[in-house]
Amino acid sequence: MGEFDLIRRHLSGLGAPRADVAVGVGDDGAVVRPPPGRELVLTTDLLLEGVHFLPGTDPEALGWRALAVSLSDLAAMGAEPAWATLVLSLPAADEAWLAAFARGLDACARVHGVALVGGDTVRGPLAAGAQLCGLVPEGAALRRLGARPGDVLCVTGTLGDAAAGLALARGGLAGLAPEHEAHLRARLERPAPRVAAGLAARGLARAAIDVSDGLLADLGHLLEADGLGARVETAALPRSEALAAVPPARRLAWQLGGGDDYELLLAVAPSRLAALEEAVRATGTPLTVIGRVEAEPGVRCVDAAGRPVEPPAAGWDHFARDGDGA
Amino acid sequence: MGEFDLIRRHLSGLGAPRADVAVGVGDDGAVVRPPPGRELVLTTDLLLEGVHFLPGTDPEALGWRALAVSLSDLAAMGAEPAWATLVLSLPAADEAWLAAFARGLDACARVHGVALVGGDTVRGPLAAGAQLCGLVPEGAALRRLGARPGDVLCVTGTLGDAAAGLALARGGLAGLAPEHEAHLRARLERPAPRVAAGLAARGLARAAIDVSDGLLADLGHLLEADGLGARVETAALPRSEALAAVPPARRLAWQLGGGDDYELLLAVAPSRLAALEEAVRATGTPLTVIGRVEAEPGVRCVDAAGRPVEPPAAGWDHFARDGDGA
Repeated sequence: MGEFDLIRRHLSGLGAPRADVAVGVGDDGAVVRPPPGRELVLTTDLLLEGVHFLPGTDPEALGWRALAVSLSDLAAMGAEPAWATLVLSLPAADEAWLAAFARGLDACARVHGVALVGGDTVRGPLAAGAQLCGLVPEGAALRRLGARPGDVLCVTGTLGDAAAGLALARGGLAGLAPEHEAHLRARLERPAPRVAAGLAARGLARAAIDVSDGLLADLGHLLEADGLGARVETAALPRSEALAAVPPARRLAWQLGGGDDYELLLAVAPSRLAALEEAVRATGTPLTVIGRVEAEPGVRCVDAAGRPVEPPAAGWDHFARDGDGA
Repeated sequence: MGEFDLIRRHLSGLGAPRADVAVGVGDDGAVVRPPPGRELVLTTDLLLEGVHFLPGTDPEALGWRALAVSLSDLAAMGAEPAWATLVLSLPAADEAWLAAFARGLDACARVHGVALVGGDTVRGPLAAGAQLCGLVPEGAALRRLGARPGDVLCVTGTLGDAAAGLALARGGLAGLAPEHEAHLRARLERPAPRVAAGLAARGLARAAIDVSDGLLADLGHLLEADGLGARVETAALPRSEALAAVPPARRLAWQLGGGDDYELLLAVAPSRLAALEEAVRATGTPLTVIGRVEAEPGVRCVDAAGRPVEPPAAGWDHFARDGDGA
């Protein structure tokens, strides 16, 4: 079997079957049928070996992650995932690698109802990315823009796990219980995009962004959209049991600055906080209040007693990755 | 100005303004509004330095080409281009480079009415690609599938120019007149996707594909979709004046096997050939009959007298690039 056939065999027919796909993989383009009364949300991401994932990353995890990071962008817009195309750059067409990559991609796509409808595979340094189309009712997309002073800031799930998972993978974190190590690595390798929480937040949250670059960086992007600032209570930042076993200083650095958690950060009017909490938690997603939006620009971190906390140095910078900020 | 701001400044607001873009660059995703009664055509391509373009390629040409190759896929589906997102991997954020790249991208997008609505810029080996959404009336997309024995094969424009342009760029072709050199290089660096011809062919052609991997390879993809074969008259293959100055053997190899011309190959019922010729030529696009679809699988090249011509070795193989074949 030629390389092309190998690639085609493994990367065709992935993801959820959808009745709205008229033409899938195998033509010059895919043809899909958007339902009436819906807007499309478009997003794209590219993950490069050595920049966004470690050399030697399990291909199944990479397949999952290549789609999950873009699904997280859709989640932050409150969009329902629909169709994806894939770009994949491979140094060689290894069958076992391709099969595992496809397995991971397929699994993530099926969980979220996404059909893989096309893509482009080229020979080059290892890189993978997805372009996703999601659907929202007209005018209903969540935006970064829209927060107001006094809004409550909430975050889904827990923060800092992926950064701790990366430290583990690099041999820079030791002494944890095996189940905690497994949890942190899974958070790095198999992020669970908060799609259901994003859909639940639609019509309730005033602004949203996904936490991919680290809480402080992404909070900065959200506030910047409206020229606002915020107060963040560091003691309130949600943490996993696994992260609780890490010394406090490193833990806080990862919670504030670590990237790749793919949680959602939401700003909500105080009057709608209870409704948002109920709606998001009904999806099985934890939601934690971490602070308030303020009129004065800048982010002020405070401890449980209200005393200033100096945030550690900023986290990620994959060329200042910024979702679809270009 | 930081690298991120530099990138954002140069890569925001590119392409044609479109009233159907609700949210453009700068959020987690873009929001666009498809018109009622339309299907979406989705396609994606990634161009890597050293694989799809030469090191040192003019960034303005690269910006143009990154979009043009995906526009060619839309053209082959008979789709009207609408929205694009960009992936760009850059070793460093050089302002002059970014400005030139953006200029080329913007120019190509404006010619075809495309709004650049988002993207992802990462630090890595030089690579650029676009994900395009186009629009077609329901059920009207042109497919690779659909040709029948007896159908006439036509191709837009001229063949082999980009391969000759590549030979020139690599110092492997000499002795041409300056205007011919300029023409061949422009065909390589600034391909003109046949969007208008693809729209004109809708409802007339029975099958279509774009010639990106070389005529024989792409004809093979088109025929393979229906288990058919074809006869191609090598003397009929359209050539530019510039290519006419190249010795016949190399010329034919490039016309049959050279990639990156981004012309359209169409199969049309004999009864509709005249209508197709009229519709395509009305867009200012040359259209040439080059052969016939036959029931017997395989492609048979013949000369003007009907004698078999041995085709030269196949052309491009960027990992068997195959449009959106995976």
